[in-house]
Order: sequence, then C-alpha cells, then structure tokens
Amino acid sequence: MNKAREFDQSVVAELRALLGDRVSVSAAVREHHGKDESYFPYAPPDAVVFPHSTGEVRDVAGICRRHRVPMIPFGVGTSLEGHILAVQGGVSIDLSQMDKVVAVHEADLDAVVQAGVTRKQLNEYIKHTGLFFPVDPGADATIGGMAATRASGTNAVRYGTMRENVIALKVVLADGRILQTQQRAKKSAAGYDLTRLFVGSEGTLGIITEITVRLYPVQEAMSAAVCAFDSVDGCTHTVIQTIQAGVPVARCDIVCDKTIAAINKYKKTNYRVAPTLFFEFHGSKASVVEQAETVQAIARDNGGMDFQWATRPEERTQLWDARHNAYFACLQIRPGSRAVSTDVCVPISRLAECVHETMEDVKDYIAPVPLLGHVGDGNFHLMLLVDPARPEETELAKQFNKRLVERAIRMEGTCTGEHGIGLGKQESLRTELGNDVIDVMRGIKRLFDPDNLMNPGKVVPMA
Amino acid sequence: MNKAREFDQSVVAELRALLGDRVSVSAAVREHHGKDESYFPYAPPDAVVFPHSTGEVRDVAGICRRHRVPMIPFGVGTSLEGHILAVQGGVSIDLSQMDKVVAVHEADLDAVVQAGVTRKQLNEYIKHTGLFFPVDPGADATIGGMAATRASGTNAVRYGTMRENVIALKVVLADGRILQTQQRAKKSAAGYDLTRLFVGSEGTLGIITEITVRLYPVQEAMSAAVCAFDSVDGCTHTVIQTIQAGVPVARCDIVCDKTIAAINKYKKTNYRVAPTLFFEFHGSKASVVEQAETVQAIARDNGGMDFQWATRPEERTQLWDARHNAYFACLQIRPGSRAVSTDVCVPISRLAECVHETMEDVKDYIAPVPLLGHVGDGNFHLMLLVDPARPEETELAKQFNKRLVERAIRMEGTCTGEHGIGLGKQESLRTELGNDVIDVMRGIKRLFDPDNLMNPGKVVPMA
Repeated sequence: MNKAREFDQSVVAELRALLGDRVSVSAAVREHHGKDESYFPYAPPDAVVFPHSTGEVRDVAGICRRHRVPMIPFGVGTSLEGHILAVQGGVSIDLSQMDKVVAVHEADLDAVVQAGVTRKQLNEYIKHTGLFFPVDPGADATIGGMAATRASGTNAVRYGTMRENVIALKVVLADGRILQTQQRAKKSAAGYDLTRLFVGSEGTLGIITEITVRLYPVQEAMSAAVCAFDSVDGCTHTVIQTIQAGVPVARCDIVCDKTIAAINKYKKTNYRVAPTLFFEFHGSKASVVEQAETVQAIARDNGGMDFQWATRPEERTQLWDARHNAYFACLQIRPGSRAVSTDVCVPISRLAECVHETMEDVKDYIAPVPLLGHVGDGNFHLMLLVDPARPEETELAKQFNKRLVERAIRMEGTCTGEHGIGLGKQESLRTELGNDVIDVMRGIKRLFDPDNLMNPGKVVPMA
Repeated sequence: MNKAREFDQSVVAELRALLGDRVSVSAAVREHHGKDESYFPYAPPDAVVFPHSTGEVRDVAGICRRHRVPMIPFGVGTSLEGHILAVQGGVSIDLSQMDKVVAVHEADLDAVVQAGVTRKQLNEYIKHTGLFFPVDPGADATIGGMAATRASGTNAVRYGTMRENVIALKVVLADGRILQTQQRAKKSAAGYDLTRLFVGSEGTLGIITEITVRLYPVQEAMSAAVCAFDSVDGCTHTVIQTIQAGVPVARCDIVCDKTIAAINKYKKTNYRVAPTLFFEFHGSKASVVEQAETVQAIARDNGGMDFQWATRPEERTQLWDARHNAYFACLQIRPGSRAVSTDVCVPISRLAECVHETMEDVKDYIAPVPLLGHVGDGNFHLMLLVDPARPEETELAKQFNKRLVERAIRMEGTCTGEHGIGLGKQESLRTELGNDVIDVMRGIKRLFDPDNLMNPGKVVPMA
C-alpha cells in the first residue's frame, strides 16, 4: 500500500498561489524531507511547503484534500520510525517556520507555542522566568513533533512524557476544521480527551499547529552525577531499587561500556569505560543531598563506584550533552552505518531480566551493540548498526528486534516506550494489543481521515 | 431525547438465564440505581444486574444490544451530574460485586483492580505494602467510576487525576468486543491513546471492567495542617503564591466560613469559623518542614493565622474526613435540600478574581452558598442549595451556574474540573469548546456505539 500515488502538478501551482516562494519542489529540499533518523530508505515528498500560520496549514490541507494528495507534517526530521517519510508521495508540511512562542503564562506555569518551536528554543526563551520545559528526547525536536509522537526522554521518570505535559492542542483536521481541544485550565473533565487522542497520533488524525505545555519551576538545587558499575546487572538493579524506594530522581539513564567508549571518542570526554548510570536530582539543597545519599548507598550495594558530580549548570549541560550525543557517537562505531533502534519499555521489576536476556541474545551480532536508555521508566534502546547497502543486515537486525519486542510483551511491556509506531512497529503493535485494538484504531483513523490523506501508511495499515 | 424507550420484558428473562438471582426489577433496587448525588430527578432503570466478571458484562451487553436496550454502568452512585440516571430506561449494570483486587505489583508501583473496587478498599488492601493510591474525590467511589468520570480531588495537585494515574483499562464495547487498551509498562508510544479516550468517557463509549492504576510509596513524613484566614481572598492569594513558588503540596483545599460552620455542626468538630485552607505535605522529614515553613510564611503575608497541625495518621484521616463530609454537612444548612454543585477550574492566576466575582454574584442567593474546592489546581465548587419541590429554585441555581461557567471560560478555564459532563454540562461543553469539537465527539460516540445504547443522553446529545 505504501506506493506513491500519482501527483497532479497543478497542486504546486495552487500551493504557490497561496504561499509564494514558500513552496519547494527542488530535489535537495524534497530529499531532506524524505528521511529521518531511522534506517528506512528515503521517500521524498512531491513538494514541500512552509506555512506560517494555522490558517495557512488549513488552506494547504484544503488544496491537498481537493486533489487527493497525502499531507505529511514535518518538524525537524529526528523521528526514528520513518514517521515523516512520504511513502505515498504528497506534500510535506514543514512547520519549522511556525516558530513563535505565542504566550508564556509564568504565573500559571504554562506556555503556548507554535508547532515549530523546538524544546531548546522554548527553554532559552523562558530562561529568565525561572521556569523550564522538562520533556527532553535528546534531539532538539520541535514541540509539535514531540506531541505528535508522544515523546519522552531523560526527564520523564520525574516529570512525565508529552502525554502528561500537553495541556491543549490546536489541530487542523483533514476536512479543514480547526479544533482547540481544551482550555488552559490545568485539569478538566470536559468530554472525551481529544488532547490525548492527538498526542501520539503521528500526524495521522490531524496536523498539530499549536501546543499549550506545562512548565516547572527550576529547583533550588539541580545536580547531575555519573556512576560506573562493574556490570550492566549492577546498573539495572540499582535503578530498580531506586525507583522502588520512591526516590524522586529527575533523570536516570543507562549507557553501556560500548556507548561510553563511543561518547569518549566522539566528544573527547574521558568517562571511565564501564556500564554507567547518569543521574540527576532536583529539589531543595537538603533534599538533593538526601536523594543522592540514598542512591549512592544503593549503587554501592550493587557494585557502583563513587559518584562523579556535575553541579554547575554548564557542567550539567555538558554531561547531558554527552549523553544526548550517544546516538551519533555510536553510529561512528561503524562509520557509514545506520541504526535499527529498539525501544521496548517493561515494568521496572522485569528490567534487569529483560536487559540481561537481550544482551545474551545480541552477543553474536555482526557489530558491537550499544545499550542506552531511560531505565528509570523501564525503557531502553539497543542500536543495531547496519550497512544500508546490505539489506540482509537490516533484516537480521529486525529479527533481533522482533525477538526483543516479543520478550518485552511477554513481560507485560510495550514495543515502543517513546519512538512511536511509524512505519516500523505496525506488526509489533498488533502483537502487543491484538486485532480488536488495531481495528478500533483503524476506525478512529477512518473517522478523522476518511480519504486516508493524513500521513498515510503510518501507525495502522488502512488499505 | 431523554425519554425512556419501550422495554421488552423478555430481556429480564434472558438476563436471569445468564445471572440467576443477580438480576433485580424491584422498585427499591431500581430507584437506588436511578439517582446519584446530583439535583436531577430520579430516573430508574428497568432492571439492574450484578455481574461478577468481564465475560458476564460482555454477555449482558450482548442481550441489551440484541434488544436495543440502553446499558448504564453503575459503581456506587456518587456522581454529581446525573451520569448514572437511566434517562432512557434500560439496564443498570452495577459493577460493585466486581470487587476483586486482581494483582498488586509492589515492585512496579501498580495494581490491577476490577471496576467495583473502591478507592478506600484498595488502600486498605495495600496498606502493608507501604504504597498508596492517591486519587481521592472525597466519596468512596469505585475505581471504575472514577476512571469513567476522570475523577480527581484533593491529591490531584501533586499526584494528578485519573488521567495521569490509569495505566491501562479493560473495556467491553457495545458490540461485545473486549479491549485491553495498553500493557503494564509505565509509558508507551504504541498507537492512539485508547486508555485516555475511555478515561472520562462516562460509560458512553464502553464499559470499563478492569483498571491498572499507579501506586506511590507512602512518604517518610505526611503532615496535614489547617490555616484560617480573615478573608477568602487571603486564601486564594496564598494558594496562588504557593503553587507559583513550586512548593510540591500534596493537598491544598479551600473551605469557606459557612462550610466550616456546617462541618463543625455535622462532625462535632471545632474548627475556627473562618475561610480556611487545608494543606497536606508529603516528603522526607526535612522536606516537609521546609515546605510547611515556606507556605506558613506565604500564608502570614496574606492574613493567615498559625497552622493547626495533624501529623499522626489518625489525626490526618480525621481532618480529611471532616473535609470530605463538607458536602453532606452543607446539605444540612437547609435540611431536605439538594445541591446544584458547580465545578469550574481556571488557570491559577485567575483563581482569586474568579472566586471573588463569583462570591459577589451569589451574595443575594436564597440560601447561604458554601464554597469549597481543590484550589491548588484552580478548581472550586459552590453548593447552590435548592428545594427539590420547587423547580424554580433549581432554575435560579442553574442560572447562577451558567454565569459562573461563562466567567470561567472567559478566564480560559473549564466548565468542569472533575465532575464531568453527564446530563448537566452539555450546553456548557458546547460553550467551552465549540460546535466543531462537539461534532467530533459525536463522531467518536457514533463510532463506538452506533445504536446509542451505552449510557445514552450523556456527554454529547445524539438526537
């Protein structure tokens, strides 16, 4: 079903009449919008548009609808499951120029942003307020894209994912209607939760153009620490005991020795090459000390060495910057490779077992397999490096991933903690939740998008 | 549209064949299932059933579907907007005998319960584990009912509402299919968020039979305090500054002087008769002291008197028990009355203004108007007491409520923070979110329940 449909070039003329030179059909621009950070082959759209307002997005959708042309929202292209690939051709709607912070309500701890505002841009913009936006998937993704994929990342263990941190959305529907899903009150019991229905819908139900997000006060003390262990098991057991003890860690990530070595090489750092936990503690000074002491004691019991601290803001930034570069650093383990990134998330009690069995399973893989992830939530990733010129390697990696997904589901986990379904996890979704759930999801898709024009081919198969 | 449909008595025979004596058509049982805590006139169902399993609920739904008979899920009947009234007749599906705690996963901080388990029952059951379930709407509601209305209550300011605390649901659809909406992992990006779609759907999209909820470790220190003020404004400003300072209060409720007087009379307590804030602080010993000192200082600046502390568990229970009895206590201000309960929720920056204008508006109401609510979230209630024998009083109260809802919406708030839409807020929902949102909600309703048999007449009008 993922075959480009015929593209009527008069669409471009209509788009140009609407947006002038903010329409591109150049090969370079189309190619850029036909790839993300996943291992999927490029699938460029027929045209790319750069709207500046919700009204323009509605008008673009109107043109696409009349011509039966797919429309694919695009942020900065950092998705990991092929979400933004134009597998059936059509128009890529690049929202990156909708980059206005519409309002910051300091007193209410919220902000309203256009979809193209990135998380770092928002945090820079609100720096002087003493507030911050916590959701941090690593990449400097747009907040629209993060809402669309229900992103989470390092801070989710304490502050939640986009599910918890989106208050309201403005959405353009396939038929051109514009919905404001909710008012700005912090909680509401006003009807069906359309906000949460669009969060994680990956552009298949509507195009998110504006997002109201929660903000949090910067805490009095915010300290990060790394702790090396003699084994991955030591790490996972430390995490489990930390969460079970109710320590409100703000971040709790694992990186394995291979990942650390790759980071050291890529970022010229000199972390000890060993399985390592990255922590962050937020709170009053006293509470941060208390949290850190508790966790340090747990770590010691599990073979952890002394904490290496990063307390000043620039040191913390450096530390998490190193962590966030793990993906690109690990790609360099095998230059020219792409990564099949796994993304299972299991109940915390099964984390050690799931990681252990998985590392056993991949030990004979064709390349070193870096392990990293947000283990405080039970979410971890492997990077299965493949040579894109050798499809049999991608096949092999997908087989590993399939076994991993089945293992996680057997442990009551999910095939995707944060990357989403996109192109790559549709069969996993069926394995996880069953045919009836898929049918219900298809019904919802059909209700919002009867002509299958909104990012077709993603989340659930429609034809 | 809310007219009882013709009821085919052969339905009862079929239900009896399925459930034996767990089917009732007695007037007393039907009447009990035709009223909640709202001001709406009784609307008894034609029959009441007491299933013991998801399979039995599915079979009951099958009988109702074949006979085109409405099915209305019922927990303990504490809803406040007529949710469980059988306004079109039909079968009340009383889930209170589905009262098994299916599993407690201490290590994962979650539990799986049948829909009829009440929040107090769950907390009693898990007492020995050192964990607790925080969502607390006051009444000892069933967890199924709480999920169905997206309940929240006193703890939501810190721990979130049912929206944040439901991990997964088992749901029986109108067509008899049984969905498990999600696995047990703490987070997931696996397709459309069906869990959140059913949370708050008030029995109109499906019947929730099993719920996986999040649990939290009981904190080292948990202290409650009451603080009297010389004005309601003093209370609201204290709340606003507390939230804006980022103090992680676990509870933060207001009760006005009239409410306190009613509580004192009803519960034989002797709280100072003045506008009062009820607080609770959770954390380590040091952190609770720190939080309390910060809030006490803010309160003093706003005319607050000294905190009265309740530190031992039984004292805390007593204090919140008093708070939770406010509703019944206030009904006694005018014996024989019913209450039109308002439920707006506004951004915290507008709270003082919204409460102030509202108290001005109701000052000439026919009876004293108690004010209470979860002000830490910007959510507050008025109890407009009416004589049920005098419909013109209910009309008058509804006019006040309409103005209040319009005021809250003007301040970017919602018509319902936690009570839901039910029968009473359908026009408010339209005012708040507009015709297009209502149409989309109606489309969702039609998708899940094409014959309009699931709690018909609630949330959105279906014609």
